Amino acid sequence: MTLRTLNDLASACGALLEGDGALEIRGPAGLRDARPDEVSFCASARFRPDFERTRAGAVLVPRDMAVARKDLALLRCENPSRAFTAIVRLFAPPRPAAPRGVHPSAVVDASAELGADVSIGPLCHVGPLARIGARTILRAHVAIGEGASVGTDCELHPGVVLYDRVQVGARCIVHAGAVLGADGHGFEPRPEGWVKIPQCGTVLVEDDVEIGANATIDRARFGATKIGRGSKLDNLVHIGHNVIVGEGSMILAQVGISGSTRLGRGVVLGGHTGVAGHIDLGDGVRAGGMSAVIGNWPAGSEIWGYPAREHKETLRAMAHAARAEELSKRVRELERRLEERESHR
Amino acid sequence: MTLRTLNDLASACGALLEGDGALEIRGPAGLRDARPDEVSFCASARFRPDFERTRAGAVLVPRDMAVARKDLALLRCENPSRAFTAIVRLFAPPRPAAPRGVHPSAVVDASAELGADVSIGPLCHVGPLARIGARTILRAHVAIGEGASVGTDCELHPGVVLYDRVQVGARCIVHAGAVLGADGHGFEPRPEGWVKIPQCGTVLVEDDVEIGANATIDRARFGATKIGRGSKLDNLVHIGHNVIVGEGSMILAQVGISGSTRLGRGVVLGGHTGVAGHIDLGDGVRAGGMSAVIGNWPAGSEIWGYPAREHKETLRAMAHAARAEELSKRVRELERRLEERESHR
Amino acid sequence: MTLRTLNDLASACGALLEGDGALEIRGPAGLRDARPDEVSFCASARFRPDFERTRAGAVLVPRDMAVARKDLALLRCENPSRAFTAIVRLFAPPRPAAPRGVHPSAVVDASAELGADVSIGPLCHVGPLARIGARTILRAHVAIGEGASVGTDCELHPGVVLYDRVQVGARCIVHAGAVLGADGHGFEPRPEGWVKIPQCGTVLVEDDVEIGANATIDRARFGATKIGRGSKLDNLVHIGHNVIVGEGSMILAQVGISGSTRLGRGVVLGGHTGVAGHIDLGDGVRAGGMSAVIGNWPAGSEIWGYPAREHKETLRAMAHAARAEELSKRVRELERRLEERESHR
Repeated sequence: MTLRTLNDLASACGALLEGDGALEIRGPAGLRDARPDEVSFCASARFRPDFERTRAGAVLVPRDMAVARKDLALLRCENPSRAFTAIVRLFAPPRPAAPRGVHPSAVVDASAELGADVSIGPLCHVGPLARIGARTILRAHVAIGEGASVGTDCELHPGVVLYDRVQVGARCIVHAGAVLGADGHGFEPRPEGWVKIPQCGTVLVEDDVEIGANATIDRARFGATKIGRGSKLDNLVHIGHNVIVGEGSMILAQVGISGSTRLGRGVVLGGHTGVAGHIDLGDGVRAGGMSAVIGNWPAGSEIWGYPAREHKETLRAMAHAARAEELSKRVRELERRLEERESHR
Repeated sequence: MTLRTLNDLASACGALLEGDGALEIRGPAGLRDARPDEVSFCASARFRPDFERTRAGAVLVPRDMAVARKDLALLRCENPSRAFTAIVRLFAPPRPAAPRGVHPSAVVDASAELGADVSIGPLCHVGPLARIGARTILRAHVAIGEGASVGTDCELHPGVVLYDRVQVGARCIVHAGAVLGADGHGFEPRPEGWVKIPQCGTVLVEDDVEIGANATIDRARFGATKIGRGSKLDNLVHIGHNVIVGEGSMILAQVGISGSTRLGRGVVLGGHTGVAGHIDLGDGVRAGGMSAVIGNWPAGSEIWGYPAREHKETLRAMAHAARAEELSKRVRELERRLEERESHR
Repeated sequence: MTLRTLNDLASACGALLEGDGALEIRGPAGLRDARPDEVSFCASARFRPDFERTRAGAVLVPRDMAVARKDLALLRCENPSRAFTAIVRLFAPPRPAAPRGVHPSAVVDASAELGADVSIGPLCHVGPLARIGARTILRAHVAIGEGASVGTDCELHPGVVLYDRVQVGARCIVHAGAVLGADGHGFEPRPEGWVKIPQCGTVLVEDDVEIGANATIDRARFGATKIGRGSKLDNLVHIGHNVIVGEGSMILAQVGISGSTRLGRGVVLGGHTGVAGHIDLGDGVRAGGMSAVIGNWPAGSEIWGYPAREHKETLRAMAHAARAEELSKRVRELERRLEERESHR
């Protein structure tokens, strides 16, 4: 363990220190867990109650936050969350090494092209005609299919699978167990049963994409399933065949997108959301977690619910549904009163 | 890239050509993306708006579809979607080769039985007493447990895991990362905590089944979890212990089926649907996406919702719920009017 | 196949036999599937209809259950489900062997520490400075990252991935394809797009935990994502970064828990449930399947729904919603009657 002084921390993250600069800190922690030799951060007013109770020795806070407590040091900065990243880095152990070259246990086809300074990890398989860009790292057990390609400066974690012809751009991170290019789920009903529709397309992942652990992105029936530049997909996400995800989209864990659906740029889908096939979500559409998205939505829509509607509309409908019991009582009362009047007619 | 003339295409899919048979086409594409040297298809009236705007050079259309546009060639056929499959195949690169025999990096136990012309890929492990049927292909990193068996003419993609004793029939396709035969989730609550209930059964996958990437099918507590002949499971599907899936069922992505539930033949479950344990779904039950299925349903039921009810009933209930606000206003108005009358009594 | 007499079975599970002790049984089966040479069990009144129709030769039943059928043998016992486990074990084939030592195809870094009697399976990779506890079994294709550690008496199934520094306690079972320690999904929105927030923490799995196939547990931004002692996670579960799962919790298949959420002890989450980030669920909270949990819940709460509310409240709200159509009719009727009266004023 490395100890760092508060002075070190303040200079690492460009914060203004209020407190003892010589105090030694052993690492970062959340407000609720931090001990007196740890540093934490208070990103916004939401975490104020935790701030008031924290036992941390020092806390990163916004420049203008009023603080009554005198028992802890403050590191005042523009953006505590961002500044905390610098602190976290300061204490973080280095990333595991990725030795240049091909590990002797890896199986690399003679026809594969390896860029400069690649690291092909233990027990990987790189198929015929595959291409791996310069400085890209394949950790253990990665499988690269025939004719697939990975750009420069990527990292593919253990057990990642790229089927044949799948293309991944530069600076992508693919987490363990993710599968790119399995057949799309296409079958035709015939008297003799489901007949497989060949899935002859591929998957195209643009630059700067991150894909979560055990996510699956299916190959297209024809053409390509596309993940736009800079998009970030979380764990266990499913992307159906011929889907297009626009640039800079954010797809949270366990979301599923059915075939041929198109997302614009900067779409954000909350965890566990399901999106029907053959629909369009415009630029910047945001869906809350566990939404069932079954129709088209124009750019900028904020939606949620089952099925998904305008976020505000879903909230209002839920509020009314919550009053259904009361409404039912009022109707019964109306009936009673009216009946009484009618009987006195 | 191979170019094909429209005459080639028409004969490949048995279509009647209206247009210039010498026009050269570079490949298939969707109506919305196709360029003048690409061919597309219009499967049904649903896609008519895209058809009217497409820039494709040629489009497969139903025999009797009325078309005003004169600027594109038509390929008239019985079933455009099916015919398009023939076109897609025409342009598709060949499947990756699967060299016969055992790759030198694979580890195959001496007691395993390998059928004629199998292809055991790089870095696979085939355990003791396992059996692999004739012509079956294991891609890289497949793990076949002790005493497990795979039928003839199957393809298991990279990273597939079969636990011990799991049985897979003939002509099955198992996509990358799928896990067959992990322990069912069975625990008994005791004062000292959750005590594991041994999962001593297995998994039995019948012929002609396809299983999606990273799907999981748990082994039975006793007997077998069964996937009926010709069923098609999509990515990230979860099948609990002792579940029985009837023949020809279609289970879309991210569906979960809890333990001991039985599905009849030809059941269709939409994506993200959850099915409770110990229930029965009759032949041909169809559940819409994201349904929460918590009770038995007789053969032929069409269900949807949270919880799942008859599809029509869910739609009606949603329509009424959407009018709850209006209803509330009407009740308030009734109260006002009645009060007015009562005050004038 | 081994045959066992009913006398054998009765003594194996401590049951009182009513029937022919010499009858030979070939194995266990469910009530609905059992044949005359098989034994089944009737755990509770819920399964009475199946009991009345079963063709099993013998059935384990509660001590005091009244039985009219004379055509099958009874094994009376305190807890038929638990006793059945003893029967299942009697017939179960032995677990696959796990030969001591390191398989010659495995790649184990020279700096890794292996405990006594470990079994490192074929084609595994154990990285630098990793530690594997005594008697722990790694099946095929397991990847242990740099500095990661696994306690004693664990079993890691094929394709499990531990990223660097992840710690797993003693007596844990991790099923195939599970990924522990992938980066948490943390990105900061900036004008140039999503900027990755480094995930410098780790994952800490305590003793006696079981983790399902293809589950994912993300590493913390700082500190550790923690899975408490004795917790059982099912297949395809997602645990976000910095989540804390209390001891003895039960997380069913396809549940997703977003970042920084804390679960108390003994929390039970039904399948497909989604839990929002930064919330607290107290000890013993139980959520029904497919719940959308978006707020804090105190210890002992029983919740369900979309969004999750008290279980009873959700049921009541659903009952009222189901009557919305009827209510609407009653309001129309009231309006008609009142109008009639007003017109007669």
